[in-house]
Amino acid sequence: MPYVNIKVTGGAEAPTTAQKAELIQGVTDLLARVLGKNPATTVVIIDEVPMDNWGIGGATVTSRRQQSGAGAARPADPESR
Amino acid sequence: MPYVNIKVTGGAEAPTTAQKAELIQGVTDLLARVLGKNPATTVVIIDEVPMDNWGIGGATVTSRRQQSGAGAARPADPESR
Amino acid sequence: MPYVNIKVTGGAEAPTTAQKAELIQGVTDLLARVLGKNPATTVVIIDEVPMDNWGIGGATVTSRRQQSGAGAARPADPESR
Amino acid sequence: MPYVNIKVTGGAEAPTTAQKAELIQGVTDLLARVLGKNPATTVVIIDEVPMDNWGIGGATVTSRRQQSGAGAARPADPESR
Amino acid sequence: MPYVNIKVTGGAEAPTTAQKAELIQGVTDLLARVLGKNPATTVVIIDEVPMDNWGIGGATVTSRRQQSGAGAARPADPESR
Amino acid sequence: MPYVNIKVTGGAEAPTTAQKAELIQGVTDLLARVLGKNPATTVVIIDEVPMDNWGIGGATVTSRRQQSGAGAARPADPESR
Repeated sequence: MPYVNIKVTGGAEAPTTAQKAELIQGVTDLLARVLGKNPATTVVIIDEVPMDNWGIGGATVTSRRQQSGAGAARPADPESR
Repeated sequence: MPYVNIKVTGGAEAPTTAQKAELIQGVTDLLARVLGKNPATTVVIIDEVPMDNWGIGGATVTSRRQQSGAGAARPADPESR
Repeated sequence: MPYVNIKVTGGAEAPTTAQKAELIQGVTDLLARVLGKNPATTVVIIDEVPMDNWGIGGATVTSRRQQSGAGAARPADPESR
Repeated sequence: MPYVNIKVTGGAEAPTTAQKAELIQGVTDLLARVLGKNPATTVVIIDEVPMDNWGIGGATVTSRRQQSGAGAARPADPESR
Repeated sequence: MPYVNIKVTGGAEAPTTAQKAELIQGVTDLLARVLGKNPATTVVIIDEVPMDNWGIGGATVTSRRQQSGAGAARPADPESR
Repeated sequence: MPYVNIKVTGGAEAPTTAQKAELIQGVTDLLARVLGKNPATTVVIIDEVPMDNWGIGGATVTSRRQQSGAGAARPADPESR
């Protein structure tokens, strides 16, 4: 009976139909294996978020992709409070 | 002041504008009737999820709809842990 | 197969067990009636949010309840952009 | 490491790319300033919700916008339980 | 950079600390394997929902567990629209 | 009318009541300033997530905090796909 929501970047980075099916199967199997949850009622919803609408490090993914395409420096430490 | 999020399948199964209005009115009334919540500040958001992005039973709704259109057997027991 | 999430204030305002059951039944019936959704696989999750953690009008519900208990003026217009 | 989700109306009211970048920067800064959270791992996701899919006061935003464009009365008190 | 939210029943059915760690590792690995996502910035949040607050089939999980403990019939078909 | 959900780690890292009020005020002001949204109907919900239930980099925050308290190396690059 678990409910799982997976958010990934969409647009040029959107998963294919086959990849989405594989994610759904994989996370459903994981919940059955680790917690004994019934696959028949495990619900998985995948959201594809436009890169302009996803921010990390205070900037949109769109601008981060542009910077890294241009060889710009990337932040050095992912550790956070 | 409640907040309600309703997720349903979109695409060919998407609710019409009138159905969305009816859901919003219905759930707002329900919260007023059961909990005495003020309709003026009850927020309802409906998400229409593509059938390739919604999984149940380890498969996408797209593939389940294809199987049941083809007369394939359906899982027999919805009970889950 | 719909998924519904209802958030209401908890603590002193938390719904009773009977009210939660009534909300679950009510919203499940609504989705069956309006959209023909199968109740057997309609999932409803209720979150009870502490009043210190819920903000509206730029203030926590806790502080709004204190103000209105004290007879303070309330904002006059719920309309928003 | 915080995760923030911001939902606003889309369509004709959708934020521009520059406004989305400003929201992401602003909320990331806020979490750093108030809670000392690391901007490098603060995630912000903005959802643009169609006006037919957003309800408040028991009606869709679409119908509320039409009413207020027509000079109709608006509800007078935003206070809610 | 994916964000994953997993909701499971809590209370007597809550996952252990070790099971939660295994879910987090498993879903992070899945996203790396299927989509090539970077584990360093994959975020997973697990919510444990009280059984009175989780509804399926129009009833709370609490009441469903009581019925099945008492040998009551269970619904026969998980298929839904 | 925006809806904002902020998730941060709870337990020993939980924000104080004053910090939660400051976050609510800050994000409400941000939405008014950037998008002209009405503060009166801006809703903000803060979730405090137990550190065992929050994963990043494939591990729970609990275990990451233990490692960094022990001087263990931290991952070097937050960039992700």
